[in-house]
Amino acid sequence: MIAYFNGQFIEEKNISVSPYDRGFQFADGVYETLRTYNGSLFMFEEHIKRLNHNLKELRINYDGIRQLPDQIKNIANELAVKNNFIGKEFSLYIQITRGAYYPRIHVFPPSDIKPTEFISISLISKNIVEYEKGIKVILVDDFRWSRCDIKAIGLLPSVLAKQQAIEKGASESIWIRDGLLLEGSHTNLFGVMGNKVITSPLSNYILPGITREVVIALCKELSIVLEEIPINKNEIKNFDEFFVTGTLTEIKPVVQIDNLKIGNGKPGIITANLQSAFTKFTLGN
Amino acid sequence: MIAYFNGQFIEEKNISVSPYDRGFQFADGVYETLRTYNGSLFMFEEHIKRLNHNLKELRINYDGIRQLPDQIKNIANELAVKNNFIGKEFSLYIQITRGAYYPRIHVFPPSDIKPTEFISISLISKNIVEYEKGIKVILVDDFRWSRCDIKAIGLLPSVLAKQQAIEKGASESIWIRDGLLLEGSHTNLFGVMGNKVITSPLSNYILPGITREVVIALCKELSIVLEEIPINKNEIKNFDEFFVTGTLTEIKPVVQIDNLKIGNGKPGIITANLQSAFTKFTLGN
Repeated sequence: MIAYFNGQFIEEKNISVSPYDRGFQFADGVYETLRTYNGSLFMFEEHIKRLNHNLKELRINYDGIRQLPDQIKNIANELAVKNNFIGKEFSLYIQITRGAYYPRIHVFPPSDIKPTEFISISLISKNIVEYEKGIKVILVDDFRWSRCDIKAIGLLPSVLAKQQAIEKGASESIWIRDGLLLEGSHTNLFGVMGNKVITSPLSNYILPGITREVVIALCKELSIVLEEIPINKNEIKNFDEFFVTGTLTEIKPVVQIDNLKIGNGKPGIITANLQSAFTKFTLGN
Repeated sequence: MIAYFNGQFIEEKNISVSPYDRGFQFADGVYETLRTYNGSLFMFEEHIKRLNHNLKELRINYDGIRQLPDQIKNIANELAVKNNFIGKEFSLYIQITRGAYYPRIHVFPPSDIKPTEFISISLISKNIVEYEKGIKVILVDDFRWSRCDIKAIGLLPSVLAKQQAIEKGASESIWIRDGLLLEGSHTNLFGVMGNKVITSPLSNYILPGITREVVIALCKELSIVLEEIPINKNEIKNFDEFFVTGTLTEIKPVVQIDNLKIGNGKPGIITANLQSAFTKFTLGN
């Protein structure tokens, strides 16, 4: 597989990240994951806007070396060509760190340090069963930092939470803080109560998911009542349906949270309608 | 400079970390910083014990490839020889990540993945002025994860806090949570009130510092009353002395916290006594 690293297209196994890269020593960087529908990157501008926002939050001067979003689109196209992905659906992973700097110091290195860029693509494989039958999730006490709104690479808590889910026979973990359901380890969450769809409001504990925004827009389009309100752990038993969203997750029904079955234990009709609407929306991509 | 990377001694600029290293993509790893006195690694067993503990917390199977602590000591000695550091004081940085794995997945990769090891040494330069005149620190609201007891490489919050300190003309940031002073961005903290030395008790928000333990032991030796009790922000004005500790920081007097001068604005006598006792203790290394 050929990836893009610091201005060059390189066979991935020949890419050489410095051990002094601040991504490696400090998790001092951000990332984005995008995907194609019909060969085009979905919600491209929104992802690049978020990437730019996060780079600014960390004061990483990436726009000093790349003009976003145009250059990223060109790089993605070139990667698709070089890897023979044309005509196939793929995901695009972008990771930008503050750069490599010696000696190891906590404080920002001099401002002329060049950010490290790693951009790769992978073919998408979809687990159809999960979309049709739904998944189980578990609740995990939130032990992350309080800037979860930044898509930073310090994902160890999410790694540990996801691992816990898998070991318990579930597919995803949902972060709980102060009794509230926030988001999944790499998804946003939605509950359905009667004809109403509910999702946790954005805060410093929630990543402003782009698929989340699409689902909110689709609810409006379908005249489904959508409320962004805090979701208490005690309300789980009242949900008729539940689902999680994400760029690669799309809309995935949740049929069990911990030991509690959601609704009748099968994906619900509103979730199915939103899945259809979502697919239709992506076809227009 | 020659470092040790995955079983080999290599010129640092030739070290090639994979972009799929989980340290680079997830901050999925731990580290330790040690230093020598009289050419011997100080508190070696304690550092290795902590490293081992943290590896176990993250379930990184490093002892499958290295026998700790013996092999690390040999590697450190070899690095000192290869870099002509014999007779000089140096620091040893050890970073172990879960390893490189493709494709990028949150969940742990198969258990036969080989952890990535990076071990480097640097000469120590000491800023004497800071030890003699003391430093200023600032208070920063704690936005880190709640497993700060693990010495993990996800240090972005500490990077941002340290940067904030430097930009405000200070040298270190102190994390505040629920009104309590916890620790610095890369130090532990101590206050002196009358003849009593106080430090924050260990918790999930505090790294069990090895210099912290040495200082506690020295207090006992010097018959100084030492209490591990929560330190409220409101008590700062009552401190006669204040200092921070760390492997490379050693014991550094703090003479100002935010805009508040500590005592008479000069390093105090108990701090000085502990600094002397510490130096004496390191001479016996």
